[in-house]
Amino acid sequence: TIMIKIAIDGMGGDNAPRITAQGVGLAIQANPELECIVYGDQAQLEPLLGSSPRVRIVHTTDVISMDEKAAIDAMRRDKTSSLSLAMQAVVTNEASAVVSAGSTGALVAGSHILIKRIKGMKRTALMPVLHTNGHVKLLLDVGANIETKPEHLVQYAIAGSLYAQHVLGVVSPKVGLLNNGSEAGKGRELEQAAYTLLQQQPEIQFVGNVEAKGFYTSDVHVYVTDGYTGNAVLKAMEGTLSRFSSALKTEIKASKVSMLGALLMKKSLKNVKRYFDVATGAILLGVNAPVIKAHGSSTAEEFASAIQQAFDVAKGDVVGRLKAVLESEVDE
Amino acid sequence: TIMIKIAIDGMGGDNAPRITAQGVGLAIQANPELECIVYGDQAQLEPLLGSSPRVRIVHTTDVISMDEKAAIDAMRRDKTSSLSLAMQAVVTNEASAVVSAGSTGALVAGSHILIKRIKGMKRTALMPVLHTNGHVKLLLDVGANIETKPEHLVQYAIAGSLYAQHVLGVVSPKVGLLNNGSEAGKGRELEQAAYTLLQQQPEIQFVGNVEAKGFYTSDVHVYVTDGYTGNAVLKAMEGTLSRFSSALKTEIKASKVSMLGALLMKKSLKNVKRYFDVATGAILLGVNAPVIKAHGSSTAEEFASAIQQAFDVAKGDVVGRLKAVLESEVDE
Repeated sequence: TIMIKIAIDGMGGDNAPRITAQGVGLAIQANPELECIVYGDQAQLEPLLGSSPRVRIVHTTDVISMDEKAAIDAMRRDKTSSLSLAMQAVVTNEASAVVSAGSTGALVAGSHILIKRIKGMKRTALMPVLHTNGHVKLLLDVGANIETKPEHLVQYAIAGSLYAQHVLGVVSPKVGLLNNGSEAGKGRELEQAAYTLLQQQPEIQFVGNVEAKGFYTSDVHVYVTDGYTGNAVLKAMEGTLSRFSSALKTEIKASKVSMLGALLMKKSLKNVKRYFDVATGAILLGVNAPVIKAHGSSTAEEFASAIQQAFDVAKGDVVGRLKAVLESEVDE
Repeated sequence: TIMIKIAIDGMGGDNAPRITAQGVGLAIQANPELECIVYGDQAQLEPLLGSSPRVRIVHTTDVISMDEKAAIDAMRRDKTSSLSLAMQAVVTNEASAVVSAGSTGALVAGSHILIKRIKGMKRTALMPVLHTNGHVKLLLDVGANIETKPEHLVQYAIAGSLYAQHVLGVVSPKVGLLNNGSEAGKGRELEQAAYTLLQQQPEIQFVGNVEAKGFYTSDVHVYVTDGYTGNAVLKAMEGTLSRFSSALKTEIKASKVSMLGALLMKKSLKNVKRYFDVATGAILLGVNAPVIKAHGSSTAEEFASAIQQAFDVAKGDVVGRLKAVLESEVDE
């Protein structure tokens, strides 16, 4: 077996280093081919991590703040933060992928500054992986790049398809262009031009325009859209979900009869969560190594999933394959 | 009392003329100041409508199809369809507003062709009215105009505020710019330029950027965004809601215990619907008369709500007030 090393930002996220350390422990236990290098405060991390020959701590006390604006600035200046060091580890090939639950802004900015964009990739894209009752939906970009051109959307489609193929095992992933109607010819100039380009792209299986309404129920694997719209759509879905959950809780608590009903429905209500599962992280596609963003409020189990995801992306060589496609396109 | 006449497309919608006729009956019963002119097939409508001195049928057998593309084309050619006739009634001042449950494309196209844009209004905007547990949220544009400029967003903000003030009775409605972050400076060039213009606009109370995530829970009344994003956000919310509802149904049916639980929770589950109520229609703002789009699948009660909404918009003189603001701006 070949071991794969993942660089972990031990100090990023709302509950770091507790859940990052616990997450590393869980991931290491579950996967014998995994090694982790954890960057952060040794005094805090060591007692939490326990001792495994497959986990190494690299000590630093510098932490990137969760404040977006300060974080981006800090990534430019502070090269000894836990996130910066984790990113440098993939640049020097010490590790194959990076995982952080810290600020998205810092992660995206740091990736551009330290890991850098793949040659030929015009923009990067942030792609959450949404599990919905056994199906997986990929949506990109959700905000790495908000001023988007048609050719960017084509590269997103290629990158998302490679992820679906080599991480999720979908043989021929279907790609849809998010649009305000399913007919051809819909959308702004951006979507109309992207539609034509996507149709001509041999690397992907383009199925046409898809509406956000059918996101969960269509058979499309990869949804491409500009970063501004992707961000709005993702947040609209999150907001609706959260509103529905809290409304349900409020209304259940309003009477004793409904509280008893909810008790009997406990298992069903828990199962409903499986339709909206975002346990794994989002991946920044288009830079020279896999960079995984775990949720800031990840549990240890969720952080472990993000580490496993980083492992899978590294093992599936999504970045190498994307480089190969982009190089062949430059040659043409 | 002053009577207000509403022109009704009797034949538009999935269940017309049955629910349109029933809806007219309910609305007329509930509001003694309302008169309706119903355009459509007299033979079908008459037995359904019964006889009220405040309801008049104008006979036509021409109907605009629900197919979007065919519908827009038909609005250009066919001036004797039930929708075209209803629209002509507001042009000739026979009626004060139009209501249709037919195709959105036909409604928007027909409004531009027959009722025409208000002088000084650069683009029209389609605005759904979302009721969420006692609060009302206005979102515009959701797709009347998809290539949007900053100055369009300012006009949307003015139009939405006038609706909130004079239909909903909100004294000083808060306007938010939908954006991918709440800090100033967020967004594309479009949002950045619109932010500056909105800050300078004395007619509105601009509270800054708002994310789609907080749509239901923020204290903002009017959300402005470009038609492409608004459409995507609305559909993402609809899709998530529908997915949550169907997931809940599926999981409830999975066991007898949970079915019993759901029975006890019946009232709570029904109350949850109040958090996501779209009973009233969407209004097309920016043309020379109020045009209300009821849902294609409206029930009679929902269609009656849309008629009452048209009445309220006419009574609140939203169009007249918008004209006055736009004229004063031209003068400056």
